[in-house]
Amino acid sequence: MRIRIRIASIRSTFRQNFPRRRPPPPLVFFCIMVIIIVIVIAINNINILIIIFTFFFVMSAGAIVESVGEGVLSVKPGDHIVPGYTPQCKGSDCIFCMSPKTNLCPKIRGTQGKGVMPDGTSRFTLKKDGTTIYHFMGCSTFAEYTVLAEISCAKINPEADLEKMCLFGCGIATGLGAVWNSAKVDPFSTVVVFGLGAVGLAVIQGCKAVNCSKIVGVDTNPKKYDIAKQLGCTECINPKDYDKPIQQVLVEMSPTKFGYDYTFDCTGNTDVMRACLEASHRGWGQSCVIGVAAAGKELSTRPFQLVTGRRWLGTAFGGWKTRDAIPMLVDKAMKGEITLDHFITHRFEGMQGQKQAIEALHSGDCLRAVASGEDAEGADGDDAEAPWKRQRRRPRRGAEEKGPGEAVMEPETATARAEANGGNGEETLGLAAYHDALLGI
Amino acid sequence: MRIRIRIASIRSTFRQNFPRRRPPPPLVFFCIMVIIIVIVIAINNINILIIIFTFFFVMSAGAIVESVGEGVLSVKPGDHIVPGYTPQCKGSDCIFCMSPKTNLCPKIRGTQGKGVMPDGTSRFTLKKDGTTIYHFMGCSTFAEYTVLAEISCAKINPEADLEKMCLFGCGIATGLGAVWNSAKVDPFSTVVVFGLGAVGLAVIQGCKAVNCSKIVGVDTNPKKYDIAKQLGCTECINPKDYDKPIQQVLVEMSPTKFGYDYTFDCTGNTDVMRACLEASHRGWGQSCVIGVAAAGKELSTRPFQLVTGRRWLGTAFGGWKTRDAIPMLVDKAMKGEITLDHFITHRFEGMQGQKQAIEALHSGDCLRAVASGEDAEGADGDDAEAPWKRQRRRPRRGAEEKGPGEAVMEPETATARAEANGGNGEETLGLAAYHDALLGI
Repeated sequence: MRIRIRIASIRSTFRQNFPRRRPPPPLVFFCIMVIIIVIVIAINNINILIIIFTFFFVMSAGAIVESVGEGVLSVKPGDHIVPGYTPQCKGSDCIFCMSPKTNLCPKIRGTQGKGVMPDGTSRFTLKKDGTTIYHFMGCSTFAEYTVLAEISCAKINPEADLEKMCLFGCGIATGLGAVWNSAKVDPFSTVVVFGLGAVGLAVIQGCKAVNCSKIVGVDTNPKKYDIAKQLGCTECINPKDYDKPIQQVLVEMSPTKFGYDYTFDCTGNTDVMRACLEASHRGWGQSCVIGVAAAGKELSTRPFQLVTGRRWLGTAFGGWKTRDAIPMLVDKAMKGEITLDHFITHRFEGMQGQKQAIEALHSGDCLRAVASGEDAEGADGDDAEAPWKRQRRRPRRGAEEKGPGEAVMEPETATARAEANGGNGEETLGLAAYHDALLGI
Repeated sequence: MRIRIRIASIRSTFRQNFPRRRPPPPLVFFCIMVIIIVIVIAINNINILIIIFTFFFVMSAGAIVESVGEGVLSVKPGDHIVPGYTPQCKGSDCIFCMSPKTNLCPKIRGTQGKGVMPDGTSRFTLKKDGTTIYHFMGCSTFAEYTVLAEISCAKINPEADLEKMCLFGCGIATGLGAVWNSAKVDPFSTVVVFGLGAVGLAVIQGCKAVNCSKIVGVDTNPKKYDIAKQLGCTECINPKDYDKPIQQVLVEMSPTKFGYDYTFDCTGNTDVMRACLEASHRGWGQSCVIGVAAAGKELSTRPFQLVTGRRWLGTAFGGWKTRDAIPMLVDKAMKGEITLDHFITHRFEGMQGQKQAIEALHSGDCLRAVASGEDAEGADGDDAEAPWKRQRRRPRRGAEEKGPGEAVMEPETATARAEANGGNGEETLGLAAYHDALLGI
């Protein structure tokens, strides 16, 4: 049973890995590797067509549902959603969804790992020559239109500003959840945050919210200290200012001289992960890996760091169960309990703004860039190998009928996406590791 | 203010590292490294003289207090105790003793790390030439007499059999505590135990006690499977029987195919520690390092193992707060709630039996050997550099007066102890790491 879906875009932003061909060159292979998490649909034969309203980063977006496939009950056309790269099937047969300890629903990880929908097909082709383009982490939000599994759609309050709420699709939710869900930081704790990018700042916000007594930010870029302190950092330090290992510096400056109650790595650098663990408190320190390392990289430490009471953990999407949590986070943001404005340092319009957005991310001054897609070109094309006929779609310029869940990329869009893969290390590295995480376990 | 203490031995067993000289050769240095944890006395000027009744392994013993120093309130002469290598000062200024999260009281780790009492002196000399012999992990139970800090003495029920209760001084308590305190294993969980020595068997007992549904034992020595199954293992496997990495084998045979809820390393081998983590369950698995690795060895894994929900922790003495917990464990053993007999595979008499005991440990057939010290030679000698005059003591052959807290080793005893350092890998490796743990953090 296949489901017909149609796509119409409204706004777009940028930054998504964009696999194009098989067998892929390294870059493309990398992209394919990370297209892993979301494709549950083929299993249940339930697809959802959404309009990407605002999309952000590799898989973050705010979107409006354009149409839904047969059997889709939890959302309907017109609903506002945030796509989730970690789906939540909620099935009573899913030990992960049934467990309060994890958010790692594995329902669709098999096909998602291959960059295809659960039926084994891609819904994207390149306009120029019909080349198959693979899905990305089950979201493929670097597009005007996309196809999602129902279990990947977090339905949110339609009054919420999608240009902000798209931030909950990845890093910001991850940072908050690392504090509240994964590490479960206690009030009055002492904390170190390694890496003061957007994820690190979200960690700081999360720690501030639970009234931590000391929050030390660590970054080699002093430009980030101001915003970190505004959000709750009690001090910021630069490892470049010290000859000693930074963990030694931190332990010596800790209130008890035994380290910090909680430490968070938001860098993806395995050397930093080690420093992060070793800066945590003797006896009870918890160190949480958030940043995802380059493929093949390993973390290490001496076992006595664990034997003497430290715990090493990690988080994926902050432990949030996508469909339950994102609507709650959105509500908190609407009430002002979670502030988001400071994360959006750059704004761009449409698919044409993608390259500028990528450049901004590379500059080191950008926390998050949001691109709205109002001027984006719609999907187009026809691919005999695709399961359904395709029709050109122009977002907000009509509601022409289209084949079920297909989209065609303009060449420049595909190029921009490919370039994004070589961009900011945090995301690029992370995606490879997500692939490992989902295929290798 | 110095305290006079006297020593008289009753029974002895074996196996203690035995530092002799400074600067030490590697073996002796290793010994010195591990003499770390207990010497709190100089801080408070409170010493306790105990009679080693039954001593076991490197720092496990059952003992009777011979005399106490000024200010000692919690025990009195004649009390039965188990020495603890992890002290518990109970001070309101000790953040570790005040925290329910840890048992790592650091009150005396500085001098203990140097193998001396808190006043900087050793209470042992070699009879032959007066060479200073350093204390071992604050217990020095490989002796007929020893001197302990009050905070290292767990007072137990005098009706308890010291020849059994000495087991609670180290590995058996550690294994049980790893399950009940550190990992806090839930009922009906699935578990893997790597290493079926005494610690691993104690882990199995702990897991059985909380009604785990599946307990898989892993060891390269099939001789250990029978006792492991008697204690609760549902199956035992030998890594040598597989071509694949053992963690892959284990995950594939796990009930969910995603690994085990809890895994325990009782080997001290860092490669096994990795396998242990990687065999734990995606999403929520906890892997506990109990075995302590060789100095300089590091554990490693790919970060995604943590990012996808596994937690890596460790335990020292099973998280038990020595003075609170050992009496409780003894009571449980007396009631039959914890069985101990199966651990004692070998028994020897007196200091002369030490070499046999060490050989038994090397054989691979020995779980724990207990030596009773009734025929032991007493301490002897005189050392002008020692703070107090020494007198020969013959255990159970009188109550001659002796200098405060001093003992002199017979040469053959010292030799036996030194040999013990090269013995069973589990303990030898562990001690070096304990040194690291206590000096390096």
